[in-house]
Amino acid sequence: MLIDRLAAYAAVAADLGVDAVALVPGPNFTRAIGHEFMSHERPLVVVIPANGPAAALVPNLELGSWAQVGFDGAVFDWRDQTGYDDAFAALTQHLDITSLAVEGQVMRVFVHHAFLNAQPDLKITDAEREISALRIVKTDADIAALREAIGISERALAHTLTTIKPGQTEKQVEQTLVQALFAEGADGQSFSPIVVAGANTAMPHAHAGDTPIKEGDAILIDFGARKNGFAADITRTFFLGHASEEQRAVYDAVLQANLIGHKMTKAGVTAHEIDDAVTSHLESTPYADRIRTKTGHGLGRDVHEAPYIMRGNHTALPAGTVYTNEPGLYEIGNFGVRIEDDVLITDDGCISLTTFSKELAILPC
Amino acid sequence: MLIDRLAAYAAVAADLGVDAVALVPGPNFTRAIGHEFMSHERPLVVVIPANGPAAALVPNLELGSWAQVGFDGAVFDWRDQTGYDDAFAALTQHLDITSLAVEGQVMRVFVHHAFLNAQPDLKITDAEREISALRIVKTDADIAALREAIGISERALAHTLTTIKPGQTEKQVEQTLVQALFAEGADGQSFSPIVVAGANTAMPHAHAGDTPIKEGDAILIDFGARKNGFAADITRTFFLGHASEEQRAVYDAVLQANLIGHKMTKAGVTAHEIDDAVTSHLESTPYADRIRTKTGHGLGRDVHEAPYIMRGNHTALPAGTVYTNEPGLYEIGNFGVRIEDDVLITDDGCISLTTFSKELAILPC
Repeated sequence: MLIDRLAAYAAVAADLGVDAVALVPGPNFTRAIGHEFMSHERPLVVVIPANGPAAALVPNLELGSWAQVGFDGAVFDWRDQTGYDDAFAALTQHLDITSLAVEGQVMRVFVHHAFLNAQPDLKITDAEREISALRIVKTDADIAALREAIGISERALAHTLTTIKPGQTEKQVEQTLVQALFAEGADGQSFSPIVVAGANTAMPHAHAGDTPIKEGDAILIDFGARKNGFAADITRTFFLGHASEEQRAVYDAVLQANLIGHKMTKAGVTAHEIDDAVTSHLESTPYADRIRTKTGHGLGRDVHEAPYIMRGNHTALPAGTVYTNEPGLYEIGNFGVRIEDDVLITDDGCISLTTFSKELAILPC
Repeated sequence: MLIDRLAAYAAVAADLGVDAVALVPGPNFTRAIGHEFMSHERPLVVVIPANGPAAALVPNLELGSWAQVGFDGAVFDWRDQTGYDDAFAALTQHLDITSLAVEGQVMRVFVHHAFLNAQPDLKITDAEREISALRIVKTDADIAALREAIGISERALAHTLTTIKPGQTEKQVEQTLVQALFAEGADGQSFSPIVVAGANTAMPHAHAGDTPIKEGDAILIDFGARKNGFAADITRTFFLGHASEEQRAVYDAVLQANLIGHKMTKAGVTAHEIDDAVTSHLESTPYADRIRTKTGHGLGRDVHEAPYIMRGNHTALPAGTVYTNEPGLYEIGNFGVRIEDDVLITDDGCISLTTFSKELAILPC
């Protein structure tokens, strides 16, 4: 029920001691409202007070879609030709609030400024952590969507591997992968995939280019399908034709770190403890200077979301959390290896939703 | 040259009378830096002072990719495990600025807050308009990329139309379209496509659902490929089996409005004048109460960018601008029609980069 979902955000406002929470299109908004909206240059905001009914600011052209939401609070609409300043003024006057918590990772500065233009004394705080915390524990439906997104992704990867040949460019492999994702039923992609080879694998977020893949290259593929609003995020690293001793040793170091992460995961363990164990293992290898990232991040409607699996984050992880276990080692100018699974935390351990093989794989030349 | 591109943003800062401009990953950043970066939860910022060298705040894991940029200013990196507060403090101390212009439509609140945490007296203004104005006039390379994106999109649409049959769901048609986009060579999609039928066409931004398409339905398809960093954005509305008198009359009203827009477009005309002429035509029809949107928006690296083609925007449009001419009429509960072309403004007229037929088309049943 919409009213129950909104009540959860009202409770966040009350816990934070602020008058209201504001949501803008993005993963929290979709979860709260039950429908996905685009924003672009047009502000669309739902404000949920700690007490009292919610109100919304909606572009006039979205009113038809908005009618399907079943929202029974006040709606302040605005038209392109007259702008949104009056609607923000009417909204803030209607709400009569003095403090507002927002999603700092989602709301853009122009919306922040529009609120302050309408009500200069409004105190706006970044409550990204508290607002997004409602998404950490996944429902059965959430997990089913994640499993579907992951299944699509793994089938697309399996198909793609059968097509890789020396001389192909990274971009060609990427095209094969993306077409396979949609052929397998993806609604979209979690992000523009990372398909890189050779020295490009040492850059964790490099994108496919015209580099041809050659024998002896590491090939790193980091990608994911979206399905029913949820995002898969999987990485595997392969070697074309053969793998050097160094490549094998680095791969094994990363794989062991990944396995340590799985082994110690269960409800109640903290994000710090997982990252510390995973990273400590990498630090104990001869490749400590190749560590560049934390162990991972939460996964759900957003491809990067809370909880962040890193030292210093002493949040105990509840059952139902899904996170990416993705240790890696990267030497600039040489190569990188990353192995990334999507892990569901249970009361007494964890389930890897990703089931694609992690054994070192040499692709045929 | 990177240094020339950054100089253009230094000039924006000088024109605005602020000490510096900040760019975060997105279309301005990609244009300025020449490489695409992801951001997610990790801040990455380039600050370009009106005078003096630029500086950057870069996640440590991106340093390998950053080395390819050829940036010779100071770089303040930060690691996941220790966070970015120290890097923002070092960056602001190094810059010694008191005012900063940002892209309000791109920068998120958490980066805004990180700057203010580091330097509470920093005056941050939203200069989205002035910063993005550098993207309005397209280069020959930009136009070539747009033409390629549009060509891919039109071929994918032509293929998709041959497959539509009564009883198919909106989602099935969407899947065909998306697979065709990637098969034709898209790097990505401009946005999650709008593929809707029947009464759903009355909601300008509805998304494909499980609604089966039936004879007599309007079918509205709004979509676009991305290629080489540029985004196509095309809409066509079709009818399955036959079109009613009302559907034909509404279609004709929208088509005439679209043609009026094309006809009056040339360098020096204002955005207001185009929208006013297009909208005035729609207002002169019996369907004035079905108007819900402005005429269109600029198109380039971003699918919605300046200039916004609407009444009240008295910006004279220069040659080299590309905008979407997309009048529409929408009656909630009944149906909607939109026809959208991507238009390049020239000194003495315009060129429709979109060449897909706009004649009323009845798809066979």
